[in-house]
Amino acid sequence: MTNKPRVLIPVALALASLGSAASATVVNQAISEAEVLQAQKAWCKALVDISQTHATSGQAAAKALAEKVIDGAYGYQMGAVLFKPTLTVAPQTFRTTRAGALAYFVGGDAAFPKDTGFALKGWTQCESKNAAVFISGDSATTMGNVMITDKSGKVTTVDKTWKFVKDDAGKLRIVVHHSSLPYTAS
Amino acid sequence: MTNKPRVLIPVALALASLGSAASATVVNQAISEAEVLQAQKAWCKALVDISQTHATSGQAAAKALAEKVIDGAYGYQMGAVLFKPTLTVAPQTFRTTRAGALAYFVGGDAAFPKDTGFALKGWTQCESKNAAVFISGDSATTMGNVMITDKSGKVTTVDKTWKFVKDDAGKLRIVVHHSSLPYTAS
Amino acid sequence: MTNKPRVLIPVALALASLGSAASATVVNQAISEAEVLQAQKAWCKALVDISQTHATSGQAAAKALAEKVIDGAYGYQMGAVLFKPTLTVAPQTFRTTRAGALAYFVGGDAAFPKDTGFALKGWTQCESKNAAVFISGDSATTMGNVMITDKSGKVTTVDKTWKFVKDDAGKLRIVVHHSSLPYTAS
Amino acid sequence: MTNKPRVLIPVALALASLGSAASATVVNQAISEAEVLQAQKAWCKALVDISQTHATSGQAAAKALAEKVIDGAYGYQMGAVLFKPTLTVAPQTFRTTRAGALAYFVGGDAAFPKDTGFALKGWTQCESKNAAVFISGDSATTMGNVMITDKSGKVTTVDKTWKFVKDDAGKLRIVVHHSSLPYTAS
Repeated sequence: MTNKPRVLIPVALALASLGSAASATVVNQAISEAEVLQAQKAWCKALVDISQTHATSGQAAAKALAEKVIDGAYGYQMGAVLFKPTLTVAPQTFRTTRAGALAYFVGGDAAFPKDTGFALKGWTQCESKNAAVFISGDSATTMGNVMITDKSGKVTTVDKTWKFVKDDAGKLRIVVHHSSLPYTAS
Repeated sequence: MTNKPRVLIPVALALASLGSAASATVVNQAISEAEVLQAQKAWCKALVDISQTHATSGQAAAKALAEKVIDGAYGYQMGAVLFKPTLTVAPQTFRTTRAGALAYFVGGDAAFPKDTGFALKGWTQCESKNAAVFISGDSATTMGNVMITDKSGKVTTVDKTWKFVKDDAGKLRIVVHHSSLPYTAS
Repeated sequence: MTNKPRVLIPVALALASLGSAASATVVNQAISEAEVLQAQKAWCKALVDISQTHATSGQAAAKALAEKVIDGAYGYQMGAVLFKPTLTVAPQTFRTTRAGALAYFVGGDAAFPKDTGFALKGWTQCESKNAAVFISGDSATTMGNVMITDKSGKVTTVDKTWKFVKDDAGKLRIVVHHSSLPYTAS
Repeated sequence: MTNKPRVLIPVALALASLGSAASATVVNQAISEAEVLQAQKAWCKALVDISQTHATSGQAAAKALAEKVIDGAYGYQMGAVLFKPTLTVAPQTFRTTRAGALAYFVGGDAAFPKDTGFALKGWTQCESKNAAVFISGDSATTMGNVMITDKSGKVTTVDKTWKFVKDDAGKLRIVVHHSSLPYTAS
C-alpha cells in the first residue's frame, strides 16, 4: 500500500506529458449534423401536431400550439426571419415577422387575408430528405425535399432551404426558411 | 517655441485618456450590407453579360464566361453549394456541384439533359429587391425578389434566397442559392 | 417649376433600378468596433466602481456588485470563460468558473486562498489602449494595454487580450480574458 | 424471385421514411477539438524544429524555416495577428505584423533591436496543456500552459492563449496568441 503514491505520481506525469486535454474544460458551440437532423424532425413533428390539434381541438388550440412552435423553433426574436412559405403570394410573399408566420400556419388574421392556415390542412406525415448540408461558422444550412402527406395519403413534395443558428440556450433556431413547389414546365 | 513640448504633452495625454483606439490596427472581416448589395448587383450583371456574350459570340464563349462567373462568385471549391435553380426538376433539382451549376446556366451537358441554358435566354436587365437581409457570424443571407427582363421587355420575377460568406481574399461567395417562381394558385 | 415632377420621377426610378434595399428589413448581428470600445470602457468603469463600492460600503457590497458585473459582462453561463487574471498563480492560474472569477475580483473565498480581491485595491482610473482589434465571424478580439491607477496615482499597465461574443440580447460578453504584467528581464 | 421488387420497394420507402441524410452532401467547416490539439502540437514541433535547424544549419536556415512556419500557421495575410510573445517589452510588446513575429522568433532585425531570437534558444521539447477550449462560430480558442524544455533539461512554463480560425484550405491559423510568464509575487 505504501507504493500507491509512487505509482500514482508517474501516471499523473505520464498523462501530463501527453499534452493531454483530458482535464480541459471544453465548450463546443459548433452545430453538429445530428442537431440539424433533429431540428428538421422537430419541425415535421410540429406541423403534424398542429394539424392534429386542429382536428381534435379546433383552430384556437392549433393557434396556441403554433405560437409555441414559432417561438421555440424560429428566430423572430432576433429581429426577423427570412421566411418564404410555400404558398404565399405578393405582396405578402415574405413573412419576416412573427405575425406573418403565424398567419401562414393557422390563418385567421385579417391582415393576411389570403392565409387559410397551411398547418391546418390535415397533415399526417412529414419527412425531410437533404440534398446537402453546409455547416459553417455559427450556422448550418440545409437544402432538399420535404414530403408531407395529407389524410388521403397524397404526398406533396416541396423544395426547402433552412438556415439554423444556435441560440444562447444551445437550441437551433430557424432564421431562414425558403419553401417552394417544384417547378413544372408549363 | 519653448511651449511646444508643454502643448504636445497634454494633447498626447488627452488622446490616451480617451482610451483611444486611434492607432490600433483593425481587421474587420464582418460582412457589410453594402458588400451584400454589391454582390447581388454583380450576380445580376453576370447574368446579363452571359446572355449578351451568347448573342454576340456563341455558346462556347458564354460557357467560358459562365465558368469564370461560377468560379468567382460561388463557393463550389468549399465542397458544395446549396443551389436550387429556378427551373430545375427532379431528380436533378439541386445543383450541389459546379458541373450542375454550369449546365443550368449554359446547357450543353449530356449529364443534365433537361438544361437548355438559363443564362442564354437573352436577358437584358436584372435587379434584386430584398425583403430582408440577415447578417450574422460569418455569413449574410438575403431573401427577396429578382426581376429579370428578356429581349421583348417581359419581366420575370423570382423569389430568391442567397447566403454569402466572405472568402480569405475578402470576396463574398454564394454558398446557398434557392430560386423559385412565385406560387400561383392552380 | 413644372419640371419638378419630371425630375423626381426619374430619380425615383433610378433608385429603384439600383436594386435598392431601402425598404428591406436588415438584421445585422456583426460586432462593430464601437461596440468593442464601449465594452472595454464598461469593464474599466466596473473595476473602478467595485473599488469605490468597497471603500464606501464594504466587501459584501463590493462582492454583490462584482457578481452583477460578472453575470452581465462575462460568458460563464455558456459553460466556461477562458480567464487568466493578472495575478493568479498555479494551480489556480486559470479561472474558468464564475466562482474563480468572483474570488479573484473580491476575495473572501476559502477555495481560492491566495485571492485578496484584485478589484478591492482602490483603483481610481482605468483605461484601455488597443494595439489591434480583430473582428471575425461571431467574435471580436482585442489586444493591447490596460492602465489602472490606484489611490496614490500609481499606474499599473497590463498586457491584455479580450475576446467578445454577442449574446442573444445583443450584448457583448467576454469569453476570453488573458491579462499579464509586462515582461521584465530579470 | 418475383418477390424481389416487393421487398425492395418497402426497403426504399423505409429508408426514405427515416428522413435519411445518408446520401446528402455534407460540408462541415466547424473546428473540432482534435484539429485544435493537432495545431497546438504542430506549433510545438515547429519551435523545436527551428531550434534544431539553428543548431545544425545556422541562423539563415532557421530564419527560412521560421518564415515558412509563420506563413503556414499564423494569419498575418488576413491583415494582422494579435500576438503578444512571452518576452517582448514596450514599445514593441505587440507583434501585429509578420516582420515583428519573425524578429521575435529568430532575431537579426535591426527594427526590433531587443529581439535575440526566442526560437533559437535550443529548445528540445514543447508540450501544451489546455485548461479550457472554447469552440464557437468560426473560431476555437484555447487557454492553458505550454512547457518548453531547453538543452539542459530546464522547463519553462508559460501561460498561453491561442485563437485559431480555419482558412479556405481547411487549415487552422493562429489569429491571436498571448503568451506570458506566470505571475510571481515580488
